Amino acid sequence: MITSQLSLRVRYAETDQMGFVYHGAYLPWLEQARIHLLDTVGVPYRELEEAGFLLPVLEAHLTYLRPARFDDRISVEARMDPQTGVRIQIGYTVSRAETVLCEGYTRHAFINRAGQPIRPPSRLVEALRKAAPSPEPPFLDPSTPC
Amino acid sequence: MITSQLSLRVRYAETDQMGFVYHGAYLPWLEQARIHLLDTVGVPYRELEEAGFLLPVLEAHLTYLRPARFDDRISVEARMDPQTGVRIQIGYTVSRAETVLCEGYTRHAFINRAGQPIRPPSRLVEALRKAAPSPEPPFLDPSTPC
Amino acid sequence: MITSQLSLRVRYAETDQMGFVYHGAYLPWLEQARIHLLDTVGVPYRELEEAGFLLPVLEAHLTYLRPARFDDRISVEARMDPQTGVRIQIGYTVSRAETVLCEGYTRHAFINRAGQPIRPPSRLVEALRKAAPSPEPPFLDPSTPC
Amino acid sequence: MITSQLSLRVRYAETDQMGFVYHGAYLPWLEQARIHLLDTVGVPYRELEEAGFLLPVLEAHLTYLRPARFDDRISVEARMDPQTGVRIQIGYTVSRAETVLCEGYTRHAFINRAGQPIRPPSRLVEALRKAAPSPEPPFLDPSTPC
Repeated sequence: MITSQLSLRVRYAETDQMGFVYHGAYLPWLEQARIHLLDTVGVPYRELEEAGFLLPVLEAHLTYLRPARFDDRISVEARMDPQTGVRIQIGYTVSRAETVLCEGYTRHAFINRAGQPIRPPSRLVEALRKAAPSPEPPFLDPSTPC
Repeated sequence: MITSQLSLRVRYAETDQMGFVYHGAYLPWLEQARIHLLDTVGVPYRELEEAGFLLPVLEAHLTYLRPARFDDRISVEARMDPQTGVRIQIGYTVSRAETVLCEGYTRHAFINRAGQPIRPPSRLVEALRKAAPSPEPPFLDPSTPC
Repeated sequence: MITSQLSLRVRYAETDQMGFVYHGAYLPWLEQARIHLLDTVGVPYRELEEAGFLLPVLEAHLTYLRPARFDDRISVEARMDPQTGVRIQIGYTVSRAETVLCEGYTRHAFINRAGQPIRPPSRLVEALRKAAPSPEPPFLDPSTPC
Repeated sequence: MITSQLSLRVRYAETDQMGFVYHGAYLPWLEQARIHLLDTVGVPYRELEEAGFLLPVLEAHLTYLRPARFDDRISVEARMDPQTGVRIQIGYTVSRAETVLCEGYTRHAFINRAGQPIRPPSRLVEALRKAAPSPEPPFLDPSTPC
């Protein structure tokens, strides 16, 4: 898994009259975390769009465990499998210090400006491969002749 | 199932630079549809909150099938099982004319102002029972002696 | 003045933890009222954009007099001078029943897709002229011979 | 004047189909800059609210000079007169590097939880006095005998 950590601070605008963060305010946070993950990989989403690759959301799932509040310092972890096919899934954990507030994932596919599905940009596929943590070295049986 | 239909028109504010409705803009639509469903049942959510019953979102799931666009006339169907326990699940279908754009559901539980889980207000349980469509009459076998 | 009245109902998403409508939630309301005003005149904004006329906001002013609350039924009056030059100003009054909650205005100019200022579409200029309420008939002095 | 500088990065959620930042997205930025200004003075707004002092927006004005775009690195300067009476005015300049994108101000007054106007918390008045840049030293006329 490739992971990144985004830090943010809850805006007043993101609360509702229940006194917590509005449940719909998390989706922009996940998006910011996703964009930060692509930065980490070295392929800013802005450049992908400028090159004609759009990455709309096909599916989103959120589980709200504990409320976030105004002015909280929040971290959003984003996780992505480096072996990416045509569909991309990203997982998220939203936390305040050690407390997990929300878990979620989003699913995406690349489309072009005409709305047609296209393969992920090779630049991204390449970058993901390089960014992938090296796999565990294979077990070397000492009895095996080299 | 108890169902309701909400009509709305897409706001410019709800679009993003992809030229479609931003995926996060659907959650307020589902919420409006949910509140409309409670109206239909005869228990406005505003009155529930005034009586100390809050209904936070515990889980949300959205599947985006086709994009909505600025100024589209949208309808949002909300569906709810009249046999409601402590957890409430509501299903949604977002459409433009005959075209389904998005499917989703949300899960909820009632809490009080102190944040503690509480049983659904009896007023709502009662109203849901009354609003439930009458079940299919049981098949009457004419050969059965009465 | 050409005027229109938009009705809306306050969304939960539009509240904040102060228990009122978030002050930033009014701008999408004014926008919806502006779009409704253009509908009234017979020139939907969607068609203007499709024809290459964009109408960005250059200035916005809002005075908040009384708070709006969740589930309130709100009406937004929009007003526009039919004699429109290159700059367009629209005035707004946001009310709940007879109570004025907010007054505001926005200023706009048409630009093309390249971001260059352009003259208002002749279709709009024409429609505004036709939509203008006929001026007060001139005072007829009964002593004046016809 | 007491001033502070907030840095932020434009979210995708903040764009609209014109391809720029939606004009309504600036109000949450100004708010975040206002909260950062209060941090700088040493009186976090969260603590003011917890102590029963609410600071609603009475008036807001925005002049949009140039568009902001997705992923732009933005700075928001907030400015406040340390001599604060019952009404508070805060000025803002939104920039991308050296380019000013938007100018604005908001006006506020403190209210309590019952919605009644109250005097600013003495803690804030005190903190503003201390945070104020020292005034220009008075012109010393060398001919004046000490």
